[in-house]
Amino acid sequence: MNQKGHEKKIEKPDDESESYGRSWRLTVEANNARPWRIVPDNCYNHLQNYMSGGQYQLDLNLVVQHILSYAHEIPLAADGMDAWILDVDDTCISNIDYYKGRRFGCDPFDSAIFKAWIMKGKCPANPAVLELFNALIKKGFKVFLLTGRDQATLAQITTNNLRNQGFIGYQRLILRSAQYKGQSAVRYKSAIRKEIEGEGYRIRGNVGDQWSDLQGECLGNRTFKLPNPMYFIS
Amino acid sequence: MNQKGHEKKIEKPDDESESYGRSWRLTVEANNARPWRIVPDNCYNHLQNYMSGGQYQLDLNLVVQHILSYAHEIPLAADGMDAWILDVDDTCISNIDYYKGRRFGCDPFDSAIFKAWIMKGKCPANPAVLELFNALIKKGFKVFLLTGRDQATLAQITTNNLRNQGFIGYQRLILRSAQYKGQSAVRYKSAIRKEIEGEGYRIRGNVGDQWSDLQGECLGNRTFKLPNPMYFIS
Repeated sequence: MNQKGHEKKIEKPDDESESYGRSWRLTVEANNARPWRIVPDNCYNHLQNYMSGGQYQLDLNLVVQHILSYAHEIPLAADGMDAWILDVDDTCISNIDYYKGRRFGCDPFDSAIFKAWIMKGKCPANPAVLELFNALIKKGFKVFLLTGRDQATLAQITTNNLRNQGFIGYQRLILRSAQYKGQSAVRYKSAIRKEIEGEGYRIRGNVGDQWSDLQGECLGNRTFKLPNPMYFIS
Repeated sequence: MNQKGHEKKIEKPDDESESYGRSWRLTVEANNARPWRIVPDNCYNHLQNYMSGGQYQLDLNLVVQHILSYAHEIPLAADGMDAWILDVDDTCISNIDYYKGRRFGCDPFDSAIFKAWIMKGKCPANPAVLELFNALIKKGFKVFLLTGRDQATLAQITTNNLRNQGFIGYQRLILRSAQYKGQSAVRYKSAIRKEIEGEGYRIRGNVGDQWSDLQGECLGNRTFKLPNPMYFIS
């Protein structure tokens, strides 16, 4: 009970942390805070509500609606060379269950725990992105899945995970091979997209949860940023 | 009263429109919806709360904090050629009062009413951006104000408005001259930035509320997107 007895105390600190969480999320999604390493501790409650309370999925749904509107208007050529790039982690499949255990990014990234999580091969599909994936393939796009995951150690588990989540019929899954180790995501992914274009493909769309998926060279005709307030990859 | 009598009815439609408004705002700020012409009608309540309830100013404040952190780390050369670009409308000064009368963008843009608003010369400063402006000048940046406003008809009123709102000491205010009429903002602003660089200036930072302020050529070392859910300029 506060000093005024019967009056309900206004939870000012909570309000402030909710407002700050909103501001913080907006500024990272518009890429104003780059590079950032960890979610500020006072964003935890906001992020927990955001990621687990439904708004994150609604936000994904709306971006996917915009992507589908755009994709359906593209006239595909008869040569079968209209391509699309999708990122994997927190685009096709979700690591929210790992990040729940890291307070949605307020605790530092732990590579051993993360690898153990990945090796289970149980990352669930992002339902909205699975719907997008299937629609793209149905329309006739050649879908390339491009991930920074290590090829030597994670190729098989990633292939299996994508299959058990329904990602079937893509053109190619590209993981980070030894020659790209230590490079930034922008550089590595640019090089791969350049190779894909070098094979004659026309990249019509490019979707990822990181700005580094959507910057650099050979970006494609249009890029789409999916929400991800939990971590930043440069 | 609902079927169960005493239980509080859950305001589902309002919840849905609030959730949708949040999703919509996130997707436009991350530039996934481009180009868009008008705010969806069911975002009105959300935008009214967002623009008038304080969150918009908090969001601006946080971006400006990030900009100031970045700006303060830049070592300025002795030649006085370190430059900064700021947009004018809804960056330095605010048109919220006009947009209040257009239901925050849910009503279509009206060029006659907008021009009448501008001609009053009473657009208030965005306080956070005025603070940024003064800090940049104090540090020694040459600040260029770059606007799509028409030079022939709006140069004097814009100069006066900026002065009456405290924007004093900038290097140059650049409005759209006849040769750039009808060009997209990206093309016009790229050409001007190229001219500025051609004079020997190094553009260290570039701040605007529109993605078209922050795309194209000669963008500067780093760009920052301020929130603006009310309109989109391509």
